[in-house]
Amino acid sequence: MLCAMGEFDLIARYFTRPAARAALGVGDDCALLQPAPGTQLAISSDMLVEGRHFFADVDPFTLGHKALAVNLSDLAACGAKPLAFTLALALPRVDEAWLAAFSKGLLALADAHGCELVGGDTTQGPLNICITVFGEVPVLNGKSQALLRSGAKAGDDLYVSGTLGDARLALDALRGTVSLQPGLLAQARRRLEQPTPRVALGQALRGIASAAIDVSDGLIGDLQHILRASSAGATLETALAAHLVAASAHPDWPGTGIGAEKQLEFALAGGDDYELAFTAPVSARDAVLAAARQAQTPVSRIGRIDAATGLRLLDAAGAPLQRHYASFDHFA
Amino acid sequence: MLCAMGEFDLIARYFTRPAARAALGVGDDCALLQPAPGTQLAISSDMLVEGRHFFADVDPFTLGHKALAVNLSDLAACGAKPLAFTLALALPRVDEAWLAAFSKGLLALADAHGCELVGGDTTQGPLNICITVFGEVPVLNGKSQALLRSGAKAGDDLYVSGTLGDARLALDALRGTVSLQPGLLAQARRRLEQPTPRVALGQALRGIASAAIDVSDGLIGDLQHILRASSAGATLETALAAHLVAASAHPDWPGTGIGAEKQLEFALAGGDDYELAFTAPVSARDAVLAAARQAQTPVSRIGRIDAATGLRLLDAAGAPLQRHYASFDHFA
Repeated sequence: MLCAMGEFDLIARYFTRPAARAALGVGDDCALLQPAPGTQLAISSDMLVEGRHFFADVDPFTLGHKALAVNLSDLAACGAKPLAFTLALALPRVDEAWLAAFSKGLLALADAHGCELVGGDTTQGPLNICITVFGEVPVLNGKSQALLRSGAKAGDDLYVSGTLGDARLALDALRGTVSLQPGLLAQARRRLEQPTPRVALGQALRGIASAAIDVSDGLIGDLQHILRASSAGATLETALAAHLVAASAHPDWPGTGIGAEKQLEFALAGGDDYELAFTAPVSARDAVLAAARQAQTPVSRIGRIDAATGLRLLDAAGAPLQRHYASFDHFA
Repeated sequence: MLCAMGEFDLIARYFTRPAARAALGVGDDCALLQPAPGTQLAISSDMLVEGRHFFADVDPFTLGHKALAVNLSDLAACGAKPLAFTLALALPRVDEAWLAAFSKGLLALADAHGCELVGGDTTQGPLNICITVFGEVPVLNGKSQALLRSGAKAGDDLYVSGTLGDARLALDALRGTVSLQPGLLAQARRRLEQPTPRVALGQALRGIASAAIDVSDGLIGDLQHILRASSAGATLETALAAHLVAASAHPDWPGTGIGAEKQLEFALAGGDDYELAFTAPVSARDAVLAAARQAQTPVSRIGRIDAATGLRLLDAAGAPLQRHYASFDHFA
């Protein structure tokens, strides 16, 4: 539905709520945030473009969820507690039904994480959603407690949270390259369209994990950012990763005809997982499991960090696997 | 020039610089910022879309400048000192010459204001530039020193910085609805394409101005945000505002055939000025002038705040003017 609603009405109607934590919210030139004493602000920004990050006909409720979820996932990877976010939105036209659903999905996830919408911008243009999110990380004795990519040490265990590859399975199904029964499609699609940012796990891992990243472009590609930043290598037990494709446990999975090779590719290079890949010393195994329990988030140990650079893939029998997986690159 | 540069190379090549003020800059999941004790963080986000905010063939150097300038202008309106910004960029293709010029214009202005690029995102899509900027505002005795829209009081003077309407004159010339001699066009075009955010003035006005806003959608439209937020009205001496069109002092101005009526429209409803409109008590006149001198930014007194709501326009003789000016609305 087209309507004559102007920019300011639009902001007021769909996105303005009273400022809670922020000193000043939507409606002045700037929002004002006052981080708690002894904390650092973690900041991340993600831009979602129609046709690139979502289909034009995607349900706007789930799009609102996902637009914030991918940003919260970056905070999770730093171990930050969500505080607030800004939303800049380019819309081809003012479609009230679309906006109502989009803001509902967005604000439901925001409320679930106590993350307040404090400002932003709306304009006319090809559909584009840019969210910048702010989180809080404690500083103890002058040392930031943020989880970085750069702290992995040789001998550390390598973990990943939750499940892998189901988002990519759904994407392939929506593109028509695989065919899924309705129940399995719905399950996979939830992972693609409504990912769960691992916010509680990220915070629980502060002081335990040595390095962390969120898996957005595929496990292997994102793991390599940790390895590069940490000047280290890794050995990955691929069978353990392949096992994390949740769809493979579904009764309709055998009927899909998807083989072990493809399943492994989904797990290692699927993308859009929004899980945490992280490392921790062997001595912290109990602490990692306690953090996972506290965050009510499953974690799996899938390999180890090596002093020798490069990533070694092992098959179920422990033999080297020669595979090349491309990670997702928004310009490749 | 098209090339095969991927997303990560692109970030590294054009936008990564060593973190200075930020605890952690480009290249992890989040940037980390530690605001100084006793300060608040002012945050603003603006999205610029091709065809809406700039022409497709605009010089990328000036576009880089303007994309950050409009955000710094929001910080200025709050009296905040620029600290850092994130950049999210959707590009139709990787054009190295374009990116080199864009990042040069962007980072030149960033350096001039000590505002550090700390993170962001790049993706493929219709050209879209989303910047979120962070500034610092002192908190004294528990009270934020931020300039807000809501503090104007009846009897306060109404001021505007710099010049008005020249950006709109340039826009009309580029659209071909007015014809300008080259020297005059170049002068006006600088105001459209390389606006000067009034960052020093905004900070100098802390504790002096009672309300402030940056003039981006036209003086009258933006002034009304102050009036609404302050539950007040105003009387505007329109001849004083019309006088602020810098082009009208140019030797080629008479040859344009632009009349007084149109000149006034440029001044009052031109848009894209990025000046500060602000209010201050009559008792602060000397302080306002001292702040303007300190910031090396001219300011003009153009009216006063009234207790009665509504905006009254007066002509040069002090008689009421009946005019309706539409402010710029990105969805109107």
